[in-house]
Amino acid sequence: VPQAEGRPVGRIGIIGLGLIGGSLGLAVKSARLEALEVVGYDKEWGVGPKAQRLGAIDKAARDAPSAARDAALVIIATPILAISQVMEEIAPVLQEGCVLTDTGSTKAQVLRWAGELLPAHVDFVGGHPMAGKEQSGIEVADARLFAGAAYCVVPHVNASERAVKTVLTLVDILGARPVFIDADEHDSYAAAVSHLPLVLSAALFSLAHGSQGWPDMADLAAGGFRDLTRLASGDPGMSHDICITNRESILHWIDRMMGELSHYRELIQGKDEELFKAFARTQLDRDVFLTKPPQRLPPPPQGEADILSSGERMAAFLVGEQLARRAREVTRALEGKGGDSGQEGRRRRRP
Amino acid sequence: VPQAEGRPVGRIGIIGLGLIGGSLGLAVKSARLEALEVVGYDKEWGVGPKAQRLGAIDKAARDAPSAARDAALVIIATPILAISQVMEEIAPVLQEGCVLTDTGSTKAQVLRWAGELLPAHVDFVGGHPMAGKEQSGIEVADARLFAGAAYCVVPHVNASERAVKTVLTLVDILGARPVFIDADEHDSYAAAVSHLPLVLSAALFSLAHGSQGWPDMADLAAGGFRDLTRLASGDPGMSHDICITNRESILHWIDRMMGELSHYRELIQGKDEELFKAFARTQLDRDVFLTKPPQRLPPPPQGEADILSSGERMAAFLVGEQLARRAREVTRALEGKGGDSGQEGRRRRRP
Repeated sequence: VPQAEGRPVGRIGIIGLGLIGGSLGLAVKSARLEALEVVGYDKEWGVGPKAQRLGAIDKAARDAPSAARDAALVIIATPILAISQVMEEIAPVLQEGCVLTDTGSTKAQVLRWAGELLPAHVDFVGGHPMAGKEQSGIEVADARLFAGAAYCVVPHVNASERAVKTVLTLVDILGARPVFIDADEHDSYAAAVSHLPLVLSAALFSLAHGSQGWPDMADLAAGGFRDLTRLASGDPGMSHDICITNRESILHWIDRMMGELSHYRELIQGKDEELFKAFARTQLDRDVFLTKPPQRLPPPPQGEADILSSGERMAAFLVGEQLARRAREVTRALEGKGGDSGQEGRRRRRP
Repeated sequence: VPQAEGRPVGRIGIIGLGLIGGSLGLAVKSARLEALEVVGYDKEWGVGPKAQRLGAIDKAARDAPSAARDAALVIIATPILAISQVMEEIAPVLQEGCVLTDTGSTKAQVLRWAGELLPAHVDFVGGHPMAGKEQSGIEVADARLFAGAAYCVVPHVNASERAVKTVLTLVDILGARPVFIDADEHDSYAAAVSHLPLVLSAALFSLAHGSQGWPDMADLAAGGFRDLTRLASGDPGMSHDICITNRESILHWIDRMMGELSHYRELIQGKDEELFKAFARTQLDRDVFLTKPPQRLPPPPQGEADILSSGERMAAFLVGEQLARRAREVTRALEGKGGDSGQEGRRRRRP
C-alpha cells in the first residue's frame, strides 16, 4: 500500500534491511500507521529496492544519513560491529528529539557507543528481539517473526520517558513482549541462553565434521544432531560480532559449561542411580520451563494510552497526538473514497 | 482391520510397546501383511490393550514369552537394560529359525547378550532406527516415524542371510534406509552424533536452570535455547541406559567436546579473523551436510526379490513363499467378497 502523496507527517528510518530490519519493516507497515512513512537503507546493493518491492519499506534511501534525516524514530538493524559506524554517519543529521534504537544481540557495547557518538538532543533506547532464524536476508523477512517473543528494552541512562514509550509501542506493534533489563544483565543472561548455545552448536558440528569417521557418522546423524547444530548455520558475521562484543560473559559461560560437562562425565562414570536422577530432574525442570516459563515482569498495566491503538500511540509519540489525529482523519477521508473496507477493524480501539 | 479367523499363517511378536515398538507395529500393520499377525506385549499395565485399540498390534499377549512363542520374527523394543532380561525370558519358547531383532540405541552390549542368552537355533540381527521424539509412549506412536530415517542393521556373526534379509525387509516396510554397520563402529559414531548431543542438551539445560539468574534468563530463552535443550526432555531411563551401555565411547566424545570448546575459547580470545573463519567454515560445512548428506552405502541393488512387494517378501521370508502366496490368494478371495477397492494399489508390484 503506497502512501498517497503528501500524507505522511512523520518518518521511521530503518538502517540495515536483513532478516531483522526487513521483518521490522513488514510488521510496522502491516500496522498501517498512516501518519508515518518507513524509509530504509541497506549497504548491500539492491536490497533497499527489494525491501520496497516486498512491502517492508515505503522508500529506499541512498545512504544511512538519508534514511535517518527527518526521522522521528531510527532503528539500526545492522550487524553489531557496524552500529558504531552508522551512529557516526547519521549523528550530524538526526533531528531534535529523534528516538534511536537498535536490534543488536549484545547491549553494553552498543550503549557505550550511543553515549559517545550520538548528540545530546536525541534519545537512545537499545533493543534486542529474542527471535531469529538461521537463514538471513530480506528474502526470509517475516512480519510475524517477533510475535510472542521477548523483546529486551535497554534505555540509555539519559533516554526520556517518551523515547522509552515509543520503543515499547514498537514492541507492541510487533506483537512481542517487552522485557526491561540493564545492559550488563542482558549480556550475561544472553551469554547463557543464546550465545553459549551458539558456540556449543558450532563446536559440536565442527567436532563431528572434523573427525575421521565423519562420512559414516553423518549417515547416522538424525533430528537430534540437526537440532543441536542448527545455530551453526547462522550468519557467521553475526556470531563473530556477538563473541567480540560479549567476550567476557561468553568465556565465563563456556567455562561453566565445561564444568557442567565434567560433572556429567563423573555421573556417567559413577553410580547409575545418580545419573538417572540427574536426567530425570532435568527432564522435569525442562517440562516445567516449557509449561510455565518464568516471567521477569508482570504484564504492563493498562494506562490511558491504551485508549489509542498501538499504531496511533506510535504516531502520537513521534509526531504529536494532534498531528497524528489529523493525519488519521485525512487518511480516513481519503480511504472513504477508495473504499478499503478492512481498514476499520485494524484501527479499532481496545476494550 | 482385524484378521479374519484362521487366516494368519505366521506371527510377528513385538515386546515393548512404547514410541518405537508402537510405531513399528503401526507401520507393519499398515503394510497389511495378510499372512502375518502382530502380537505385542508391554510390561506396563494397560499398554497392550491400548496398542491393540490404536491398531499397532492384532493381539495383546499376557507376557513376553506369549508374544514370542510361535513367532517367526520377534522385535524387542524395550529400554536397553531390559533387553537381556527379555532375551532370558523368551529364549526357551523361541521356535526353530526365529529371527530376533531389537531397537536399542547401543549395539555392542546387545550383541553380546544375544550371543550369551539366545539358543543357537535362532538368528539375531540388531537394529537401531535413527529416529525418535522427545515424548515417549504408545500415545505418540506414528507409522511414519521411521520414514526416510537411517536404520542401522547389525547382524550377529552367526546370523543367517535369510535373517538379515528379513530385517532388511522390515526396514523397507518402515520406509527407512538400511545402514550396515559393525556394533563397535555403530556405538562410536552414535556416541558422537546422538549420545553426546543428548549429554550436551541435558548439561546446557541443567547449567542454565541451576544458575542464580535462571528466572530472568528463562524469560530471554528463545528458539535457540529450546532447540539445544530439546533432548533434555527425552526419557531419562533411555538416556541413562545409553550412557551405561556405551560409557567408554561417550566419555571419549565428551572429552573431545571439551577440547573443541577450549579451541573455540581460544578463538574468542584471539584474533577476530580466525574466529570469523571458524564460524564461516562451519556454516558452509553444515550447509553442504544438509544439502548433500554423505551416504555410507549406495542404494541396495534391485534383485529378483523385488518382483514381490516388501510385504510379500516379509511373509515369504518368515513363512515360506508358497505359504505366503496361498495366504495372499485366500485373503484376496475373501476381500473380493468384502470389496476393499484400495487393496490392489497397495499390493502392486514394483516397476
